[in-house]
Amino acid sequence: MKNDAVLAIVGATGLVGSEMQNVLNDLKLKFKDIKLLASENSVGELYEINGESYEVKLLTEDAFNGVDIALFGTKNELSEKFVKVASEKGVICIDNSSAFRMNEDVPLVVPEVNFDAIKSGQKIIANPNCSTIQMIPVLDAIEKEAGLERVVVSTYQSVSGAGKNALDELWSQTLAIFNQKEIEVESFLHQIAFNLIPQIDMIEEDGYSKEEYKMINETRKILNLPDLKITATCVRVPVFFSHAESINVQTKKEITPQRLIEILSKKEGIVVNDNVYEYPMPIDTAGENEIFVGRIRKDYSVPYGLNLWVVSDNIRKGAALNAVQIMQKL
Amino acid sequence: MKNDAVLAIVGATGLVGSEMQNVLNDLKLKFKDIKLLASENSVGELYEINGESYEVKLLTEDAFNGVDIALFGTKNELSEKFVKVASEKGVICIDNSSAFRMNEDVPLVVPEVNFDAIKSGQKIIANPNCSTIQMIPVLDAIEKEAGLERVVVSTYQSVSGAGKNALDELWSQTLAIFNQKEIEVESFLHQIAFNLIPQIDMIEEDGYSKEEYKMINETRKILNLPDLKITATCVRVPVFFSHAESINVQTKKEITPQRLIEILSKKEGIVVNDNVYEYPMPIDTAGENEIFVGRIRKDYSVPYGLNLWVVSDNIRKGAALNAVQIMQKL
Repeated sequence: MKNDAVLAIVGATGLVGSEMQNVLNDLKLKFKDIKLLASENSVGELYEINGESYEVKLLTEDAFNGVDIALFGTKNELSEKFVKVASEKGVICIDNSSAFRMNEDVPLVVPEVNFDAIKSGQKIIANPNCSTIQMIPVLDAIEKEAGLERVVVSTYQSVSGAGKNALDELWSQTLAIFNQKEIEVESFLHQIAFNLIPQIDMIEEDGYSKEEYKMINETRKILNLPDLKITATCVRVPVFFSHAESINVQTKKEITPQRLIEILSKKEGIVVNDNVYEYPMPIDTAGENEIFVGRIRKDYSVPYGLNLWVVSDNIRKGAALNAVQIMQKL
Repeated sequence: MKNDAVLAIVGATGLVGSEMQNVLNDLKLKFKDIKLLASENSVGELYEINGESYEVKLLTEDAFNGVDIALFGTKNELSEKFVKVASEKGVICIDNSSAFRMNEDVPLVVPEVNFDAIKSGQKIIANPNCSTIQMIPVLDAIEKEAGLERVVVSTYQSVSGAGKNALDELWSQTLAIFNQKEIEVESFLHQIAFNLIPQIDMIEEDGYSKEEYKMINETRKILNLPDLKITATCVRVPVFFSHAESINVQTKKEITPQRLIEILSKKEGIVVNDNVYEYPMPIDTAGENEIFVGRIRKDYSVPYGLNLWVVSDNIRKGAALNAVQIMQKL
């Protein structure tokens, strides 16, 4: 990306949009101009990025005039509408919603794994689901070394994946319990404080949640393994930031825990934290850029199998950072 | 058990011992006498069971004189010492620690599944690990219908599994975070409030935790399937009561989700809660006697596979109730 480009951040004041601003700051990425676009509520708010002050403007069709590239941190309905509008105006759109992810014409990208899926002239690029992103570089490394035979994943997903209000809700529900007041439930279908909710996104007819299908279908698309044997169970846990995943992998050839540690340790963006009594945890990984891997163990129940524990900040690598990394590579 | 028996509850004031008292109350089980035994700290405390008042006495070798049956809610070291002493005095000992579970001469019992493992004259009977107990009746039902091919389980275990102090610690750490005070860590190796700790019990040389090996080895012993293919990942979550488990099961023959629901619904002690947007959660199952099963879905990644979500009160069915159920059947 040349420095004389005009960038738009759409949904600039939401959890993902705010983190996109943070990532631009951290990486000291400068632009000719940055347009912060949001709904009416946020119009007029001021944000500082790399020492410059920007005022939030209303998200309209005309707001994309003159924009070169846009990062969308919006939900499906807004993305569906404005990604189309913007891309037709020639803007390169990197969209974090699930609206375009499974479109055949839209590349779904974790840049360190399948950046080559982006063809020249591509206007819409989809950012994968947070719970998908953090396991992809790890699964990709295993696929290249030993071939993936089957993947069984159970997630432990933080409330920030459901947005700003969900963060507030975990906080206020916890406080209500301390003060013996009534608990208000809005962001989730049930109380999340001191509880587990084994449902993320809607439930389909066969009992799977949409989140589980996202993990299955997006992984197959990104790794270009349309027949990959993979199943998922997605669970919300009372943690503010970072998703964790217990991943069981069967491989086609043998790969020892030692060998996997060796391979992963060399990958940029992955940190292996696998010592006795040391392993990745949400409180240590929140705000970090990397994907953290630990509890790497042989699974003795199959000829070639491994158990892994993968943790990453779902708003950062799981959303904002990945989108910015795609943009940087363009 | 005849009503003229003398019962001892060992570790009577701990989390499991207290729950054993509650279960006696709830089931209205009466005895000729009940001896509440504990360490010096608790001696002299008074507890009411079924309308009678009992004073806590010091746990000594002589305290077992005249006792017919003893329920042990003690940790390994105390169980190791006093189960031996008591059983040599002819007391039937039902022990909740892991000290005797894998002894060849000691039956490890979930009464609705393998009560017949208890031979006549047996003095020591082991109560399985909480995270094992709650999946056994479900796995047993699947084994009998379709044969177990392989089990992959990831746990979400509440802090009560680590005792009374651990409950206090989740509470006080959460409060400290609200008050921006320093967090004290004692019961666990790391902060548990708003965090996940992927380690329960000590870590072995190959990277597995002892808790994970308990789930693997105890399941094989109870189901009498010494070669069962099974692997586990155990994780502590910031929840007070009830363990949850994401269980992936491959079977030898086909068993549909509908058929499994039909079978499980008929089992005493199991509640199927599997409707759209309805599933078992810790806050709903705490204090309940049953094992709750939901999110039952076909796993499309293998010819015959299922994903399940199993939740149960780890102190109740996972410990105290199971021990009392063994005693009742004797």
